[in-house]
Amino acid sequence: MIKRFTITALAFGFCLSAFAQDTPDASVVQKIRKEGLENSKAMNIAFNLTDVTGPRLSNSPGLKRAQEWAVKQLSDWGLKNAHLEAWGTFGKGWQIDKYYAATTLPYYHAIIASPKAWTPGTNGPIKSDVILIKADSVSDLAKYKGKLAGKIIMLDQGTPLTSGIKPDFSRYADTTLAQMAAAKAGAPARQRPAGGPMGDRMAQMMKMREVRAAISTMLVEEKVGLILTYARGGQGTFFTSNGASYALDAKPVSPELEVSAEDFLHIQRLLRAGKNVEVEADIKTSFYDQDPQGYNVIAEIPGTDKKLKDEVVMIGGHFDSWHAATGATDNAAGSTVMMEAMRILKAIDFKPKRTIRIALWSSEEQGLFGSRGYVAKHFGDPKTMVLTPDQKKISAYYNLDNGTGKIRGVYLQGNEAAGPIFQSWLTPFNDLGATTITINNTGGTDHQAFDAVGIPGFQFIQDPADYNTRTHHSNMDTYDRLVEDDLKQAATIIASFVYNTSQREAQIPRKELPTPPPAKP
Amino acid sequence: MIKRFTITALAFGFCLSAFAQDTPDASVVQKIRKEGLENSKAMNIAFNLTDVTGPRLSNSPGLKRAQEWAVKQLSDWGLKNAHLEAWGTFGKGWQIDKYYAATTLPYYHAIIASPKAWTPGTNGPIKSDVILIKADSVSDLAKYKGKLAGKIIMLDQGTPLTSGIKPDFSRYADTTLAQMAAAKAGAPARQRPAGGPMGDRMAQMMKMREVRAAISTMLVEEKVGLILTYARGGQGTFFTSNGASYALDAKPVSPELEVSAEDFLHIQRLLRAGKNVEVEADIKTSFYDQDPQGYNVIAEIPGTDKKLKDEVVMIGGHFDSWHAATGATDNAAGSTVMMEAMRILKAIDFKPKRTIRIALWSSEEQGLFGSRGYVAKHFGDPKTMVLTPDQKKISAYYNLDNGTGKIRGVYLQGNEAAGPIFQSWLTPFNDLGATTITINNTGGTDHQAFDAVGIPGFQFIQDPADYNTRTHHSNMDTYDRLVEDDLKQAATIIASFVYNTSQREAQIPRKELPTPPPAKP
Repeated sequence: MIKRFTITALAFGFCLSAFAQDTPDASVVQKIRKEGLENSKAMNIAFNLTDVTGPRLSNSPGLKRAQEWAVKQLSDWGLKNAHLEAWGTFGKGWQIDKYYAATTLPYYHAIIASPKAWTPGTNGPIKSDVILIKADSVSDLAKYKGKLAGKIIMLDQGTPLTSGIKPDFSRYADTTLAQMAAAKAGAPARQRPAGGPMGDRMAQMMKMREVRAAISTMLVEEKVGLILTYARGGQGTFFTSNGASYALDAKPVSPELEVSAEDFLHIQRLLRAGKNVEVEADIKTSFYDQDPQGYNVIAEIPGTDKKLKDEVVMIGGHFDSWHAATGATDNAAGSTVMMEAMRILKAIDFKPKRTIRIALWSSEEQGLFGSRGYVAKHFGDPKTMVLTPDQKKISAYYNLDNGTGKIRGVYLQGNEAAGPIFQSWLTPFNDLGATTITINNTGGTDHQAFDAVGIPGFQFIQDPADYNTRTHHSNMDTYDRLVEDDLKQAATIIASFVYNTSQREAQIPRKELPTPPPAKP
Repeated sequence: MIKRFTITALAFGFCLSAFAQDTPDASVVQKIRKEGLENSKAMNIAFNLTDVTGPRLSNSPGLKRAQEWAVKQLSDWGLKNAHLEAWGTFGKGWQIDKYYAATTLPYYHAIIASPKAWTPGTNGPIKSDVILIKADSVSDLAKYKGKLAGKIIMLDQGTPLTSGIKPDFSRYADTTLAQMAAAKAGAPARQRPAGGPMGDRMAQMMKMREVRAAISTMLVEEKVGLILTYARGGQGTFFTSNGASYALDAKPVSPELEVSAEDFLHIQRLLRAGKNVEVEADIKTSFYDQDPQGYNVIAEIPGTDKKLKDEVVMIGGHFDSWHAATGATDNAAGSTVMMEAMRILKAIDFKPKRTIRIALWSSEEQGLFGSRGYVAKHFGDPKTMVLTPDQKKISAYYNLDNGTGKIRGVYLQGNEAAGPIFQSWLTPFNDLGATTITINNTGGTDHQAFDAVGIPGFQFIQDPADYNTRTHHSNMDTYDRLVEDDLKQAATIIASFVYNTSQREAQIPRKELPTPPPAKP
């Protein structure tokens, strides 16, 4: 998922007892459970999406490989109409063709790092003393003018590391889940004060952004050889941040490495102490701009009920990842679970009343572009709330994008009427740890695109695992981080939710339509 | 410290109340405490030993840089007779001059790894498909004959990773310390059965060693290009194992990389699934055999008491490290603390009765060679128990080599008579968490060389910190892992112990002399 900034409870009353409960067909659920838990292909799917494919950065060759594999795999399972569907213009693809960097003075040490996404390479091997750049304002840059051509520079940033006194991997405690379940609708969203500390912080951030933009421009003008940037993390794990622009008309930027904290701080301490540090590097990256369109993978199990087959249950997750690893938990995990859920339904030869559609989004990491583009094309415009007739045909959209952690419940996104339905559907999986319905919403991923045009869109509660500590956008988001039992559990539960949604007499209840923001004069 | 295999309680009765307590001079201890806690130079010493010097593998240029720096630094503080003293023949030095490796098929991915110590480089860039070698016996190798020249191969080994459900960093709980304190002397050392499961395991290990030796010889004969070996660890941290031989007449070996678990398992999964993996690498290493002597750093604060100045209190720790990082916790930490303890004593202008001597050992990692060589030269032969007159002049030897963790107490190594003395000396530092005296012994480091010839040799109880989880022989044993407050505390306590030992009327009580093993016929 992309970086998440706010989680708020929506302003609706919530009362489970006000609704009749749905009762799943136990025999079908049992079949799903048997197929999902005893005949799982989840790890094989995940292996193909990670180890075999590689990183799946938006519009990269890696993403294209994964998309082509998924279309074929979904077709091979018997899904219909499996295809790539363009959602709009993204920009350039990019990949790393070579990464090498090491200190050569005061002694040799190979550096753990990665080129920042969408940055150029060094155009062959380079070697130079490292220059430490201290700049709090644009005027601080003047003293470096004319001194940086071909040089390797380090921005003076980053904070000393602390030791790991908490475990990397965690599951939700019963008490935490109980708090989520007890959350009340209507808790007011926190207001940001216009002035005061937060206002000051915003102003400071804006100023920093300005300084960084000025530094970036100046460094390109000075023809700097390579920038070393601090990457959050520790102990060999580092997290990538947003890269340079992927736009077709992006301004040129300098070659830039995100350097693991240990290696960054090592060089920084030496430079701050006045020691000479020399670094050699050889970085090659490629850009791909022949087809700037972004694509989603779409496939279906067609509905069979005369009245209901034009209605649709959708499931999905984003397929794109960051570039420093194979995006196993962000979001090969969610994509795997959704593909496996479709496989389970085909394996038990389920003939749904409503059509079931899977969507594997792209460019989620840059702003939910794949899902938003799809929604705009098919269902309506969240800015004007002008909706298409198809908007009414989607019963629900289910999303998974919080790592490898098993499902512990569902975020209702303020849709209180869905609560008792989902509570009932979770019952056969209570023994697998999935028990909790919360009125809370959660953000940062593709269900929001649906929610924004009034289609019930849900993301599941998942155990945190080591998502925030080790894997989310990190160089260690690898196949090794996937917990097989958790993926099996999630695929089984989602297959069951899809089954129930497709057969249910009525669609999933909807919230009131969001009010479009007032048009700008 | 080197890998530790056994911790046993020695067979002596232990009763604190049987001994009179020593009472430290509170005003001097207070001066030591003030200098150690409020004017510490520990982090600066550690910075010089790690960031500035680099890895300190035995007889490497890095170790020589550190030794020369230490001799100068100790002299600058006013210590006398600071010098390098040869302890005997070690063998070749070695260092990494270039490390680069990456997969190029099925896609590009830079590999986190390190050349195994004392292995040769690749003699320029190489690139090949990776061949997975499965060999449980020597005869399994036949099928690979004639197929490996110039190839990159992977030994089929390693185990899937598990997630971090325990914290990396820990301190001893009060209950654990209480158990240590309550340990009774005379608990029999565990006997290894001649047959049974342990006998089988030994036989199995011997067989594996034999297979490995045969594989190694065969791979050299076949002129293999590079071996990829599984390195224990995870999430970017990997632990190095013993390297190839450092002996002057060592048999030739193949170039070999210890590969981080994620990168190793990634390639292995692909190969096991029948996928093609191509790797490129460029590794350069250098050997140093002009001076095969090993050296220790020695320096003194001379004694001033007419009767006692020929007696000596020794402190030390090993100065050498492994090569994949800067050996911050193994054992720049212990070396730092011991140097800082000497600095504190000079800073308060302490004039000891007995001479105080610091020794910074080398080649501890290969078998406590530096300390054993020193002890053999000066104090006696543990094989024959033929002792020198100087053996009687060493009141005690204090060692530190269990990472960055602060001191929680002292291992008595079965020397029960020292218990009440040390208990009393710890009293002024109880508030800093140092409280525990245990009759237990601890192994794996240089105090054992002294203990072996009947000189009281002690290692302190230290908080585990992240020594076993992250730093011990790992590529992440960096300056970042050092906890400043812990190093300050340890240096302060050790300076105080040294002060007390130097001034005490009598020497530290001795255990009975070890009985030499029977001479072989």
